Amino acid sequence: MPLNEFSLIERFFANHSQRNDLVLGIGDDAAIVEVPKDHQLVISSDTLVEGVHFLPNIPPRALGHKALAVNLSDLAAMGAEPRWATLSISLPSLDEQWLAEFSAGLFELAEFFNVALIGGDTTRGPLSITITIHGVIPKDKALLRSSAMPGDWLYVTGSIGGSNLALQSLLDEDFAHEYQQHFNKDQQQAHLDKHYFPQPRVLAGYGLRGVANAVIDISDGLYGDLRHILKASDCDAKLWLEKLPVVEGLEQFLGREQALKMALCGGEDYELCFTVPEANKGSLDIALSYSGVNHQCVGQLSRGDGQIELLEHGQAKAIELPISWDHFTTSA
Amino acid sequence: MPLNEFSLIERFFANHSQRNDLVLGIGDDAAIVEVPKDHQLVISSDTLVEGVHFLPNIPPRALGHKALAVNLSDLAAMGAEPRWATLSISLPSLDEQWLAEFSAGLFELAEFFNVALIGGDTTRGPLSITITIHGVIPKDKALLRSSAMPGDWLYVTGSIGGSNLALQSLLDEDFAHEYQQHFNKDQQQAHLDKHYFPQPRVLAGYGLRGVANAVIDISDGLYGDLRHILKASDCDAKLWLEKLPVVEGLEQFLGREQALKMALCGGEDYELCFTVPEANKGSLDIALSYSGVNHQCVGQLSRGDGQIELLEHGQAKAIELPISWDHFTTSA
Repeated sequence: MPLNEFSLIERFFANHSQRNDLVLGIGDDAAIVEVPKDHQLVISSDTLVEGVHFLPNIPPRALGHKALAVNLSDLAAMGAEPRWATLSISLPSLDEQWLAEFSAGLFELAEFFNVALIGGDTTRGPLSITITIHGVIPKDKALLRSSAMPGDWLYVTGSIGGSNLALQSLLDEDFAHEYQQHFNKDQQQAHLDKHYFPQPRVLAGYGLRGVANAVIDISDGLYGDLRHILKASDCDAKLWLEKLPVVEGLEQFLGREQALKMALCGGEDYELCFTVPEANKGSLDIALSYSGVNHQCVGQLSRGDGQIELLEHGQAKAIELPISWDHFTTSA
Repeated sequence: MPLNEFSLIERFFANHSQRNDLVLGIGDDAAIVEVPKDHQLVISSDTLVEGVHFLPNIPPRALGHKALAVNLSDLAAMGAEPRWATLSISLPSLDEQWLAEFSAGLFELAEFFNVALIGGDTTRGPLSITITIHGVIPKDKALLRSSAMPGDWLYVTGSIGGSNLALQSLLDEDFAHEYQQHFNKDQQQAHLDKHYFPQPRVLAGYGLRGVANAVIDISDGLYGDLRHILKASDCDAKLWLEKLPVVEGLEQFLGREQALKMALCGGEDYELCFTVPEANKGSLDIALSYSGVNHQCVGQLSRGDGQIELLEHGQAKAIELPISWDHFTTSA
């Protein structure tokens, strides 16, 4: 029997996950869910397009993971608890093996965070995936970009630069050759995992409720994403370059300046960048103790209009940096 | 200044609509909204891809309208009140004029139903639009596909066949030539409006709460969509062909059998198909009196497994019909 649209949806995407708050899942005109009392609904949507956001030869399992991960990362940056997702996928053709791997990657991550797939759409077309993620948060506890205050300390979770390092090695054969000389297999795998299977910092987001003033996730690179916080909060920041959690070995491989550029502007690390007032600095270690990720203080905010000052051991350091990733002017 | 992704989003899509229940709109990692007490959240998502769901030369204003309308139609079929939408749009290039018209078409409809655009994503890629629509409904009042009962009367709103008639005239020059001879300018415009600017039956959906047993919207054609109700509800249906609200003049133009095929399988009429128990039949006129659309009883349900029997004045009528529109086997 040839797979048609309906049996396709049923086979790979229906009835996978159940939640008590899911009143009606896939199969009707719409899904129905219940938002708990005294909670607000948090909604975000991200699209991944082949050739723009991912390379044509990406393993389908990685694509399934990443399409959900980038959305979960947005909820993490709000401190929200993810609950329900819709998936709209455009496929150039029906490939059962591809779909089996894609859905496996998607559902492994969905099940880890107990996210139910509640609807969506499967269409014929160039490969593209849009996920809309829905989470909940106790009323008025969401972590915004606009709530940073002058004097706040600036933090980053995990490490940065690894995802872009893997991407460059996939894009550029000469680069890949030197890269493979420099890093051992385990390191290479770690970079590739960071690129293909980013771990959204959902648990860190929970921990930061009531502790951080402002949070953003690092999708376009720390330098550009930090500017979103600063502009929304009328602040400037001093960034201490020697404190940046640059992925291990990157500086020895590329040299100091190129390594900093990659770490600051490479993007797709899906770590959290956040600001914490002096009064909450002491409780941060405990707040993040169950999040499974390190954090590092990398600077401080002052009143301003969105400027970032780069300092190395207290001295101004000039590095020419692109402001941010823009899908219409840069290609992946 | 060249438009980049951020200024593009700001210029055409941000800060258009406000609602009291919108806590945080476009501009942070996610949006935040409040679902009213004792209500459930209703979510649906639909994707339109160029060349699959719409012709490459569709007027951008029509595309903006239609992309939202098909989603509103899904909420109408649940009886839900639409409130918030996310828009993910892939564009091959940045064309300000195109975007101005697309967003005008989208927001005209959004404002009519007081739907706030709360987020989304703009990416470079082949033209494709995914909207996820969110509505609310009083707890346990949603109209499902699975609640039809044997004995229910079957209804259709408005008229059917007009959208597909317009589509055929756009696709086929010979067809168009005869079509223009047969229908006057006003009729042609009405068909084109039905195709490009479908009116989602949101108000009819409200009216059907507590009156209809089962509802679906007609996106793939009455014949295929009715089967979804029947299969979900373990029913068969008798369909009275002489009662079908086939668009005026279609039978004279195509002949009886071809006209019935177009009306039953053409799709994209975005009318509602619903079932009403005998006890509620009398209150239907009042329930739909403020919906701005007619309704017509076109058959009756019995216990079964999803079969549709076509009757003409009580006699069985054999017409060979495709079960349903399938984007992977049919092209628009």
